[in-house]
Amino acid sequence: MILHGYFRSGAAWRVRIGLHWKGVSYQDVALNLRTGEQTSAQWRARNPQAMVPALELDDGTLLTQSLAILEWLEETRPNPPFLPADPLARARIRAVALAIAADTHPVQNLRVLKRVEDLAGPDAARQWAQDTIATGLAAVEALIAPHAGPYAFGTQPTLADIVITPQLFNARRFGVDLAPFPLLLAAESACAELPAFQAARPEVQADAV
Amino acid sequence: MILHGYFRSGAAWRVRIGLHWKGVSYQDVALNLRTGEQTSAQWRARNPQAMVPALELDDGTLLTQSLAILEWLEETRPNPPFLPADPLARARIRAVALAIAADTHPVQNLRVLKRVEDLAGPDAARQWAQDTIATGLAAVEALIAPHAGPYAFGTQPTLADIVITPQLFNARRFGVDLAPFPLLLAAESACAELPAFQAARPEVQADAV
Repeated sequence: MILHGYFRSGAAWRVRIGLHWKGVSYQDVALNLRTGEQTSAQWRARNPQAMVPALELDDGTLLTQSLAILEWLEETRPNPPFLPADPLARARIRAVALAIAADTHPVQNLRVLKRVEDLAGPDAARQWAQDTIATGLAAVEALIAPHAGPYAFGTQPTLADIVITPQLFNARRFGVDLAPFPLLLAAESACAELPAFQAARPEVQADAV
Repeated sequence: MILHGYFRSGAAWRVRIGLHWKGVSYQDVALNLRTGEQTSAQWRARNPQAMVPALELDDGTLLTQSLAILEWLEETRPNPPFLPADPLARARIRAVALAIAADTHPVQNLRVLKRVEDLAGPDAARQWAQDTIATGLAAVEALIAPHAGPYAFGTQPTLADIVITPQLFNARRFGVDLAPFPLLLAAESACAELPAFQAARPEVQADAV
């Protein structure tokens, strides 16, 4: 398999964690988001969203969208699992994953912030990112409160942790105060001990600058 | 069950389709997003994201995030299915659902557009919504092209259609030209014949104004 990604893309990072978690070996091919490689006609012909990540299977099939790729990994390689068996627990974990992957990350991605900067300047864009991330993390801190410790949902890491870890990295990049989110920080610390999370960190990727 | 929603919320609309699809009877409780009822302290204590939809189970458990609720419905009530059995087909369908539910809809929701308007005025907000929706729909049109007819993924409606229908309604509200998206329009037309989609339309909800 080939993972088309970028070392600092939060969405690609999620898939890297998932691949290592499931013990899938893969080749990493980086698209430099800063120079716009993901918007080339060549890449757009493969992924019409002009985004990363995309997972290329051995027959050339390209899977897109980090959460769809993670669900596919879970269905085709059930162990060790990202999600418990209980449907209600799965729903709660997916809700946290989506609170970040749908309502937070896409609202503060490079494309959106560039547009805010064009409309209202760099300070407005930075404030936009900070507010978007802080709002999302505050909601997730409250959503996991009845379940957390040490991971977002108890004593086993789940899909929620896969999504939380890259979002906290993004929060720091934009200078968000993380003191109000002790449960998220605890989950991140617990995950940092796990080999799959260690191998997926941006700074150890081949394209890290 | 109680669905906490709003007639014009695209995310609540997805869950309404899902509930009717699975034959689940439910009570509808509306929060008026225009007057900000979803941001009340009372609602925030129940759903920290201060959003709709939320599905309240008979024991009081509250499930949030439309896609998480739909996956829960699919897991607890497998027939008739939203998703086929093949993991690869499921991944493609989920990718389309996420291209809209993560990368399009949250970037053009009321909260975001209000902020754009505050920064740069109502024309900028309208343009933002149009561009965001047109970009998302163009990607989805290309993603479904190898599979579509009459529904987004062949001859059976899926989760992709559940997400596409409300997004097209939103596109019209903001004056997006839909002529470039014949496959999406065909899927919408096919879905409009189905009772679950008919019962979920905004204009037939009790809180429609």
